[in-house]
Order: sequence, then structure tokens, then C-alpha cells
Amino acid sequence: MKIGPQTQRSSAISAANGTTILVRGRDLAQELVGNISFTDHFWLLVTGQPPSAGQRRILDATLVAIAEHGLVPSVQASRMTLAAAPEALQGAVAAGILGCGSVVLGSSEVAGVFYSDIARRAAEGSSAEEAALQVIQEYRENRRAIPGYGHPLHKEADPRALRLFQIAEEAGLAGGFVKLARLVETLLPRALGKPLALNVSGAIPAVLLDAGFPLLALKGVPILARTAGLIAHLLEEQQQPIGFVMSHAAAAAIDYDGPVPDGFKRSDE
Amino acid sequence: MKIGPQTQRSSAISAANGTTILVRGRDLAQELVGNISFTDHFWLLVTGQPPSAGQRRILDATLVAIAEHGLVPSVQASRMTLAAAPEALQGAVAAGILGCGSVVLGSSEVAGVFYSDIARRAAEGSSAEEAALQVIQEYRENRRAIPGYGHPLHKEADPRALRLFQIAEEAGLAGGFVKLARLVETLLPRALGKPLALNVSGAIPAVLLDAGFPLLALKGVPILARTAGLIAHLLEEQQQPIGFVMSHAAAAAIDYDGPVPDGFKRSDE
Amino acid sequence: MKIGPQTQRSSAISAANGTTILVRGRDLAQELVGNISFTDHFWLLVTGQPPSAGQRRILDATLVAIAEHGLVPSVQASRMTLAAAPEALQGAVAAGILGCGSVVLGSSEVAGVFYSDIARRAAEGSSAEEAALQVIQEYRENRRAIPGYGHPLHKEADPRALRLFQIAEEAGLAGGFVKLARLVETLLPRALGKPLALNVSGAIPAVLLDAGFPLLALKGVPILARTAGLIAHLLEEQQQPIGFVMSHAAAAAIDYDGPVPDGFKRSDE
Amino acid sequence: MKIGPQTQRSSAISAANGTTILVRGRDLAQELVGNISFTDHFWLLVTGQPPSAGQRRILDATLVAIAEHGLVPSVQASRMTLAAAPEALQGAVAAGILGCGSVVLGSSEVAGVFYSDIARRAAEGSSAEEAALQVIQEYRENRRAIPGYGHPLHKEADPRALRLFQIAEEAGLAGGFVKLARLVETLLPRALGKPLALNVSGAIPAVLLDAGFPLLALKGVPILARTAGLIAHLLEEQQQPIGFVMSHAAAAAIDYDGPVPDGFKRSDE
Repeated sequence: MKIGPQTQRSSAISAANGTTILVRGRDLAQELVGNISFTDHFWLLVTGQPPSAGQRRILDATLVAIAEHGLVPSVQASRMTLAAAPEALQGAVAAGILGCGSVVLGSSEVAGVFYSDIARRAAEGSSAEEAALQVIQEYRENRRAIPGYGHPLHKEADPRALRLFQIAEEAGLAGGFVKLARLVETLLPRALGKPLALNVSGAIPAVLLDAGFPLLALKGVPILARTAGLIAHLLEEQQQPIGFVMSHAAAAAIDYDGPVPDGFKRSDE
Repeated sequence: MKIGPQTQRSSAISAANGTTILVRGRDLAQELVGNISFTDHFWLLVTGQPPSAGQRRILDATLVAIAEHGLVPSVQASRMTLAAAPEALQGAVAAGILGCGSVVLGSSEVAGVFYSDIARRAAEGSSAEEAALQVIQEYRENRRAIPGYGHPLHKEADPRALRLFQIAEEAGLAGGFVKLARLVETLLPRALGKPLALNVSGAIPAVLLDAGFPLLALKGVPILARTAGLIAHLLEEQQQPIGFVMSHAAAAAIDYDGPVPDGFKRSDE
Repeated sequence: MKIGPQTQRSSAISAANGTTILVRGRDLAQELVGNISFTDHFWLLVTGQPPSAGQRRILDATLVAIAEHGLVPSVQASRMTLAAAPEALQGAVAAGILGCGSVVLGSSEVAGVFYSDIARRAAEGSSAEEAALQVIQEYRENRRAIPGYGHPLHKEADPRALRLFQIAEEAGLAGGFVKLARLVETLLPRALGKPLALNVSGAIPAVLLDAGFPLLALKGVPILARTAGLIAHLLEEQQQPIGFVMSHAAAAAIDYDGPVPDGFKRSDE
Repeated sequence: MKIGPQTQRSSAISAANGTTILVRGRDLAQELVGNISFTDHFWLLVTGQPPSAGQRRILDATLVAIAEHGLVPSVQASRMTLAAAPEALQGAVAAGILGCGSVVLGSSEVAGVFYSDIARRAAEGSSAEEAALQVIQEYRENRRAIPGYGHPLHKEADPRALRLFQIAEEAGLAGGFVKLARLVETLLPRALGKPLALNVSGAIPAVLLDAGFPLLALKGVPILARTAGLIAHLLEEQQQPIGFVMSHAAAAAIDYDGPVPDGFKRSDE
């Protein structure tokens, strides 16, 4: 079945023959393996070019920042899945990654789109402040949360966001998006009636877009980073299992409020 | 529902309060972000300790080696999934990771278990050669492929495997597992009646186990690495879609051999 | 970490003790197992009430209609995943389900939202035709496809859509949504400049919404249905594997257009 | 890349042209939609033939029995995933299905293999009792749980298992596997030193194998059934969200036992 126009019929990422594997035009075994870091390789895979020293430092910093934050929902889903299906570690990782969504963990991308919208309007003639207030207003009218601000635990400030901005400054790569992310933070008290601190998912797109990382690959950063954290949790789950302990506690926190026949008593177990 | 004994009730990976996030006992924002690479962080997450220079180089090399090899099944599944469901990049990544199995891509872990079995028996008294022949024999009796040897494209030698061994030597970390992996390669002509070259999924566990990476986390290496490759493919898929082109070609390669009512003619489209 | 307001703390679907499992307030083993069909059970699970005879017939018809359509992208992803990871059939099913997206297979839900938007505006005072033309116009301005119309293979008419409407009429449950789906079909030549036939993903929400199935569960119908088809394909894949054949053909259909070092020749294998 | 021998190049499940879709050789829109139940269709898809009345009743009963059992790990993983990524219901279903593993939910297949091993040995000459004791002994030596027996909540008896056997008797389809499943239950006190009651995951393969359902598709039954339950939970999650409530409670049940710098105090939030 021929779905869609199908005009494109090529890919520029990799090619191989019996003795050589090309990745982005480079000999994988001879030029890349052993000579570049995995972070360099990720940047090369995504953009087609190796990163500068500053780009590498920023990408490393964002990946380190978002890889791990304890027993968050994606980690719980992953550990429960391994407990139920220990034969497939890849399935447990996949279950964790599926929680990299627009609300939790994956909101770096949503925030990147938010900043890009503001930047586009500012480029079309409004002041940055006007453009930002306009986009914020539209999000509110559509009952959408402002992505990249506020955190259930880090209410005053997200230490990862502060640190990422510091690194972008040090690398000389803090630009328009970092400025915009800060501007929005200062506008929120007026726009929302309360302050909300910039969080890590607001800082990541700001520093990466300024560094030249593509908007359409932004979500890959929390996904790749969290995969590293998930693997650590899944090793621990094999050695010291808590998946079913968490599941027991989670179920016990929820009441049943459906119909009940006479005499039925729900088990406390 | 209380499944299993549930004796373990703790985790040692991360803890946080409003101002500080600990990862493996270190202050994430102050000590780690901006100071260590993502590869360092992965090793720290998994083992609880930062890697030595040699361990870092080997882990980087294995991640770079296995991240990308063109339009392999996992990449195809991922790109087709994004074409069908562009609203969820995380779903397309998950579909790709699910193909990191015992036969393709995830066989590093299977090979790691294979080498560990041989090493255990050799430690119990047999010579390494006897132990290896014994384990190979058992795999054959159970009709299991010898993991880590043979490749559909790199038939003479897998250039990534050669390079990984070279790097382990340079790092001074080539040890018993590298020796074992080579020994098995020399035994295969006798044991199987034909030679099979060591492939990247045999070299990865050999160099990582020698470097001190835990056996139970081995599968995490191809999973993490391939996630980077998948993200590059999914960016390209958004810009130059080929998911449905591949699907069309794949379906056209397969005949229908079920029952057919009179007069029915299958469409060539 | 306390994410969001967390005001709701109960569920109405199931409760159990050592001897009795309640599902939607009914004794699972005594009242349901052996007495009702799986389709009845699905309706009961989703809505809290068993279906009428007409509702059951319509739900059965939609599930049968969308369960299987040959080697479509979701089936290919699933079979390739099983070929790579035969240890986890659940992973192969998950890979297939992940392709139940807004573009392919999952568009029943998108079409259901489309019809509901039109119905809401018509209820607010416009004629159905005005409302439909308005919503179609907005989709076009946002460069969104009109969901539920057009099919790569069934260009004149989708035989499943015709049949579903016939069944809804027979069951006496064809109502406003069926009428709306047909109205849109008649408006498309004017609105788009070309006709597009109603497809199965337009008919499913029309007949189900008229029958009282909830809009927010619509996507569950193609997901559940396709799961049945995937299981048939995964049984066949275990007995007559074609996953890697499809993958080989798919890769062969794509050229490499990235940079190439001197003398490199891509393998045809 | 040509992986494996690739000798098979056909599929017998479905074919189509512009006006007709064949499923297992039957005209989908004219013969099947509206005329058969989804359970009939599932049997037809998997086996190539429609079920008898008894086969239909048994398949319906097993699907109804295993579809739902409250907030079990797979349901929790699925609801947490939807809370984090509401844009992709298919991702939340996939996360739930990934927990259909060898330990929880998916053990019907493991039990089916267990019974088939016993049956094969009994057919080769041992008495059924000898064969059963032998296989149980081997499971114990390999530290594997006996699949299909014991349940954390239904300790005396699993009401679903009892009911499934009753239905198989009523349908006249209880045969050698049902007998075997009961025999094993009587042998366990002697073999394990304690009684373990047959559970639903032991009863499902017994009644289905006796009814002629293929062993290699057994895991599809809990997967398909649970998908129906997951969709009900995901509808409720959209209307009355508890995903993050469960996640909060689960995390609170786990202590942190890693290293802590001076003065750090973990948040109770």
C-alpha cells in the first residue's frame, strides 16, 4: 500500500560495505570509534557535523542534567515492567521512555516550540516582550501550561537550570533563546498573577537552540539522557527489586468508589 | 496486591530536596553538570563510581561503535512508527528500542553471558579451551546460535570488533574476556565446521567486562547507543520522510499464499 | 514528588478480596466469565454498563472491520521486532500498537474529534453544513488533513465504511454523527476541489458515537482490534518468518545520498 | 542487509485490492463485518478457521477472565505514562502491554509450555504423574517458579480458574491439559512441601490447549484481554487522573540508602 506521496527515497546517515561502515560520511571504525566521545557522536549523528568544544560542553551538560531525578513516574513504570517481564530489559526501557511526554520529562521540546514561536513573532516586528506576552496569552486561552516554568519540588529555582545558563555563558554560546527564557520568567508574575521559576526543561531548549542544536531533535535529549538513568535503575532492580513494593504502595493509595454488592469487603492486601 | 516477598525497600541512586539533587551521592548541579561528560555520567549512574580514563575511553568506543548501522530493522520500525504517529517521538524511539533483542542488536548481553559461563567453568578447573568447547557444544545441542560471531555483511571481519580490541589494548584493559573472545573465534572452525568472525556484539561484552562494567547492565550499552542513532533517523524522517516508502517496498516483497475466492485479484499497489 | 493537584484518589473499575473479583460492580467469576462475550466485557469495562444488542453489534462490527489489513506499517514493525527479539512477544505487540497514530490506524479518534467539533458548532446555532465547512476550512488553514476521508487503496469507496453504515442503520442506531460523516463527504469536492471517499476511520467514530461509545475511548477501538491482528501475524512470524525479508527489501528501496570518501562502494547486499 | 536465510517470502493472512479486503480468504466487509463477533474474528485470524460454539465460549471466557484485576503493575505503568504523555494513548497502552511478562500477566504462555513439556514426556512413555514430577523437579533445580500456581491474593483458590474449568466441562472440551493442570495441583504439596492453588494463568492454557488454540499464540490471550482493561483505565485516567497520585505514593514507600553529603536532608515531598 502506497501511503502518501513518497517522493523522497534516500537517507544521508549511513552506508556500508563488507569492510567499511560510513556514518555521516566518516569511516566509523577508523575515524570515529576510539577518537570521539559518545556525545560528539550524538551531535554528529543528528547534525552531520562534529560539535565545537562549546557545543560539546553544552550538550554534555544538558544530558547530565536530565538523566536522573530519582523515582519519577517513568522510572517507576520501567522498574515495574522489568519486575513483571525480566526476560526483556529492552521492554522495560521502552516503557520508561514512553513516559517522556509533553507534560513530564519531554517538555523540553514543547518549551523549544514555545520559545521559537516568540522568537519568530519578535523577528516579524514586535518587541520580544510584546511577542512573549502575546504567546503566553494564547497558551492561557487554550488552557495550556506555560512549558519550562514551575517544578513540584524546586519551587524557588531549579538548580539545574541555573547551572545550564552559567555553562552557556562560560562557553560563549548564550544568545537570544537564553535571553528569551529569562525574559519570560520575569513576565510570568504579571501574566499569570504568580511567579514560576524556570525549570530544567526550559533551560535545555534555550541553551541548545542557542548552540545550534535542531529544534526537531530537542526531544531526543531528555529521551537519550533518561535512557542512561533507566539502565542504572534496571540494574538495581535486578539486584534489589522494588518494582512490586512500589506497585503495592501505589495501589494502596487509591480507594475504590464503584458499586459494591452486599457483603463485599475489599481486601487490604 | 503484594506480589513477591518485598523485603527490599530502598534505592541508592538519587535523592533530592528543594535546592539539591543528589545522584550517586554527588550534587548534580554543582559537581556533575558542566564538569563531566555524559559517558562519565552513565558509568557513574550504573556503577556508583566515576570511570577511570581507560574505562571512559572503552565505554565511549563501544557506544560509538554500535550507535548506527543504517536502515536496520530497529531503525525501520522506528521510522515507520513516526510516519504513522508523528505526535509521539518517544513512541517511535520505543518501537526502535524494542528491537534490541537477543537475535539482533541486543546480543551483546547474550554474548556476555556466554563468555561468563565459559570463564566460570574455566575457574572451576577446566582449561579455557575445554570450557569453551563444552559451552559451545551445549549451545549447539539446544540449537542456539553462538552469540557474538558471524555477521550478514562483515563476513571476513567486523571492523568495529577489531578496533574495539585495539582500544582495549591501548587502554591497558584487555584481559581475560578479550582473550576468551579470541579463543572462541579460533575454536569455531573445529566446533561448527566453518569459521565465523567475531562481531561487534562479541567485542562489546569482552572489552566492557574486562573494564569492570557489570554483566547485568551490558544490554544497556546497545540500547543507549542505538537511541542516539534513532534520534538522528527520526529527525531525518521529519524532514525527508521515507517510512512509508520502506513499508511499501517491504510489503511488495511478500506474496499472499492464503485462500482466494474466484475472480479475486490482489492489487499491485 | 507530588506532581499536579492530585485531588482525585479513587477508581471505579475493579476491587477484589481473596475470593471475589469485582469488575464494574459485578462478580467477575460468577456473573461475567462464561456468560458474556469479550465485546460485551469491553463495553462494560469502558462505560460501566453492558451494551444493548445494537451497541454490541456495532462494536463487534467496528472491531472486526479494523483488526486486519495485511502488511501495513504497524504489522511490519511488529514482525521485524519479533524477528530481532523473539524472547518478548509483548514487545512486538507494543511496537505494533505504537504505530496506531494520528496519521495511520489511530485516525478514528482524530475523526471523532473533528465530527464532535462540527456537532458542537451546529448545536450553537449554525446549520450543520455551515459548521462543517467552517471546521474544514480551519483544518486547511492549519495544513491538517481532513481525518476520515481518502484511502491509498480504496479510492472510490472503502467497503468497510459502507458496511458499517449499513449495520448502524439495521441496528436502528444511525444518528447525527452518521449523517454528519456523510454530509462532510458531499462537501469535500467543493471544499477541497476533489472528492475523497469516507474511509473506515471516519465510519468507526460516526457509528460508535451514535451508539453512545465515549469519544475519549475511541482510539481504544483500533488499538484493541489491531492487537488481535498482530497476534495472528506474530504466530505466523514464529512459523514462517518474513520480518528480515521485509527489512531487506525496505532498505534496498532507499538510496544513500550522504557524503562518500574516495573509493567507497556501498554494498548491494 | 540480508539477515538469516530468508527462505520464506509469503503470508497467508490478508490480501486486498481496491474494492475487496480478504482476511483468511474471506471477504472482510461482506462476509465478516456485522456477521461474526470480535472473538470469532480473533480465532479466525489466529487459526485460519472460525471457532465452533464451544471454542468461542472458551475463548470468550478466558478473555473476560484476564482482562481486568484492578490497579496491578501493568495498569499503573500505563496510567502513569498517560499522565506524563497525554498526547499518545497508544504509548500508554504499549507501556501496559510491556508488563505482560513471564512473571506477571503473561505467565499463561509459560504455563502452556510447562504443560506441553509434561504431555510430551507422558506421550513418550512415562505416566503423567512421573512426567509431571520430573518436569517440576527440573524447574526447581533451575530455580524457576512453577508457572500457573499460587496467587498473592487468591491463596485458597483462584475463582477465575475454577470457573474456566467448569466452562470447559460444560462445553465438552475439557481434555488432557485440564486433567494435567489438576494433576499438577495435587502433586505440588509433595513436590514443593506446600500446596499452591491453580491460578487463572494455569487455567487459561489448559482450557485453550484442550480447545485447539495454538501454543505459540497463547500469550496473545492475556495481551488482547488486558488491552481492553487498559483502555477502560485510560478513559478513567483522562476523566479522574490518579497516575501522579500513585507515583507519589510509590516513591514515598522507598527509602534512599546511598551516600549523603553533610547536611543534606531529603525532602518529604
